[in-house]
Amino acid sequence: MRSAEIIAVGTELLLGQIVNSNAAFISKELAECGVYVYHHTVVGDNPERLKKVIEIAEKRSDILIFSGGLGPTEDDITKQVLAGYLAKGIIYDAEHLTKIESFFAARKDKMSENNKRQAEIIAGSHVLSNDFGFAAGMFLEEKAHTYILLPGPPSEMQPMFTKYAKPLLLKNSEREIILESKIIRFFGIGESKLADDLKDMIASQTNPTIATYAGENEVVIRLTASATTREEALRLIAETEEEIIKRDGAYIYGSGDVTLVDLVIQQLMEANMTISAAESLTAGLFQAEFGGTTGISKIFKGGMVTYSSEIKHELLHVSNETIEQEGVVSQACAIEMADNIRKLCKTDMGISFTGVAGPESLEGNPVGTVWIGLSVVGNPTLAYRYIFNRDRNYNRRRAVKEGFALIKAFLDEKFDKKEK
Amino acid sequence: MRSAEIIAVGTELLLGQIVNSNAAFISKELAECGVYVYHHTVVGDNPERLKKVIEIAEKRSDILIFSGGLGPTEDDITKQVLAGYLAKGIIYDAEHLTKIESFFAARKDKMSENNKRQAEIIAGSHVLSNDFGFAAGMFLEEKAHTYILLPGPPSEMQPMFTKYAKPLLLKNSEREIILESKIIRFFGIGESKLADDLKDMIASQTNPTIATYAGENEVVIRLTASATTREEALRLIAETEEEIIKRDGAYIYGSGDVTLVDLVIQQLMEANMTISAAESLTAGLFQAEFGGTTGISKIFKGGMVTYSSEIKHELLHVSNETIEQEGVVSQACAIEMADNIRKLCKTDMGISFTGVAGPESLEGNPVGTVWIGLSVVGNPTLAYRYIFNRDRNYNRRRAVKEGFALIKAFLDEKFDKKEK
Repeated sequence: MRSAEIIAVGTELLLGQIVNSNAAFISKELAECGVYVYHHTVVGDNPERLKKVIEIAEKRSDILIFSGGLGPTEDDITKQVLAGYLAKGIIYDAEHLTKIESFFAARKDKMSENNKRQAEIIAGSHVLSNDFGFAAGMFLEEKAHTYILLPGPPSEMQPMFTKYAKPLLLKNSEREIILESKIIRFFGIGESKLADDLKDMIASQTNPTIATYAGENEVVIRLTASATTREEALRLIAETEEEIIKRDGAYIYGSGDVTLVDLVIQQLMEANMTISAAESLTAGLFQAEFGGTTGISKIFKGGMVTYSSEIKHELLHVSNETIEQEGVVSQACAIEMADNIRKLCKTDMGISFTGVAGPESLEGNPVGTVWIGLSVVGNPTLAYRYIFNRDRNYNRRRAVKEGFALIKAFLDEKFDKKEK
Repeated sequence: MRSAEIIAVGTELLLGQIVNSNAAFISKELAECGVYVYHHTVVGDNPERLKKVIEIAEKRSDILIFSGGLGPTEDDITKQVLAGYLAKGIIYDAEHLTKIESFFAARKDKMSENNKRQAEIIAGSHVLSNDFGFAAGMFLEEKAHTYILLPGPPSEMQPMFTKYAKPLLLKNSEREIILESKIIRFFGIGESKLADDLKDMIASQTNPTIATYAGENEVVIRLTASATTREEALRLIAETEEEIIKRDGAYIYGSGDVTLVDLVIQQLMEANMTISAAESLTAGLFQAEFGGTTGISKIFKGGMVTYSSEIKHELLHVSNETIEQEGVVSQACAIEMADNIRKLCKTDMGISFTGVAGPESLEGNPVGTVWIGLSVVGNPTLAYRYIFNRDRNYNRRRAVKEGFALIKAFLDEKFDKKEK
């Protein structure tokens, strides 16, 4: 098993101006390649200190991965220092040199000599193409060590590593390794609870690797298996996935990169069901989720933010009787809001959100109480009560997600589709 | 000038499961203390490798700051390894031991011996109180080096460092240092343009330090000065601030931690002006910004999301004439929407957003065209056209911010208040 060290070069990292997210990204990728990372190092734009860091790294690591310091300024020193250290020359890579020269020519901009530096590579290295920038990356194999040089900006580094460096690392392992990944998506369970449920699996993981990522209110698990054949890798994943489903399958809503909101919007588009919303405490957060999708006007027409009781009554026609007798934080109010917005906007579905944002309780309901109403033409209108107990904005965002989960549950039942 | 090395301990960092944000936080704090950070290191929960890392760090750094590895499990080894390395004993800190024992007693939970480990400290060290967790921190001064041990979780580490460790570092410098910070807030200028305008100042900064932080559509500069008196520190800041104002004062909207949205909401509350909104492409993003503030119902009553032309006409009463002849992405439509929502909701102010989300142009307007209308009782209704040219969601969020900036401009003029 090969060992690796990730060396990030850049004084801005040591000043704390940016966070070293590159090391985490590369580490995660290496874990899937069966390469152990034993050290991360960050050093500044200082040739002497970088040289010493390389000396130390060579004693303890097989693979040295550098990130940063490949740019056009005087402070960009990574390849120059490494080339000097390894007593190798520096030559131009034609492809990157052409890209840089063309860019400046097209802009009729004066190109300084410095810009050309980004096309320089260490003689004998394999060039890694920079598809999102100018600085050429490098993969250099020597007798005792492998050196990989990557640019600093994540938007350039990540694609370069994944697309060009990783396959070389996999190829150079003793046998050709094939990787397969699967992402499993959860809603309604927190990351620590999920990690706790899978504690033994996570602790003893080797192949596949089990990585959890927490978004707010959503958790994602990425399983990555390595094997000599694709079938074997998929089998390993399926085995682990089966055990996860046994334990927490109830919270799984999907797979891959499609979030809960995306999935429900897709379902609505496929079902050709139009939707409108009336929001009180969420104040537009739910409807705003529709604005990001191309072609959304096919199913989303609009709605209201009925923040005050007066507006609920005057614009949305919620009856004074309901407001005075049941209160605005009530099943009756949620139902009326959902029904009325659906009819006003002439949509198939209407959803409502009304609750207690805080900090004080309202009408005897504790802070975090939310009623969500769902009105669908041809179906009885239902309202559901939730109690969330974090801060105001978390509760609002959570309510929005629960609204989407409610719509999903309705559509799943109606169309008998359960996403695993 | 003292040099520091930040050593993060934890295998989960090397697996890429979490990002080493602690190093960036501590580095930024140290920069303000006049301490130079020359290295960051990450090592796993392995005593041998940690010991070697300490050896290397001592040769090149005066101050060694450890983060992580202070927890209750077998993998938590930082203080044990350092104590062994320095040939020092381990003793209990009474305060933390009591806190741990009380916690478990109150929950009638069985406390394992492991939990008590968090109250152990290296003999001779100064205890740093953990106000948000159980693991005691340590500040240990030896002849040639200073060692600071901090817990891993940022919610515990950050307050411990800022409140307890930093003052000790400042005290131990040759003279007592006083720090003053000022945050200057910008809107309407991008971070790279601002950094470019201040390039020479940023490159040659020593005291005060100049740190830029980019939020989306907002940039913040934090100036931090260190001096032997508060007056001198403030003077240094004012000097630098004056130069920044000379160059980019037009973009400064505020100071401190109050964002543009917070500031405008405050201004509306102070002016006692009620507001409603009609949103098309922003689809609720603008109104959603109001939902986060306690007591907002004093000025915010609600509004509409009029995503389709039909809804603009049927619920908001935008005339068919305007829709057909001027189009929905027009000055006339923006003005009508703003006027109508103001009257319907009976508020002092009405604001509207209508534009081209994309991906295709609409009514001959390019993607990213946005009209924002502002209707204020007793004032001529005005509409402003913007063209944003990034992706759909960026354009929507940018439009929301511009809406707030528009309201601010109106209120500033009306009340003759200019925030510097």
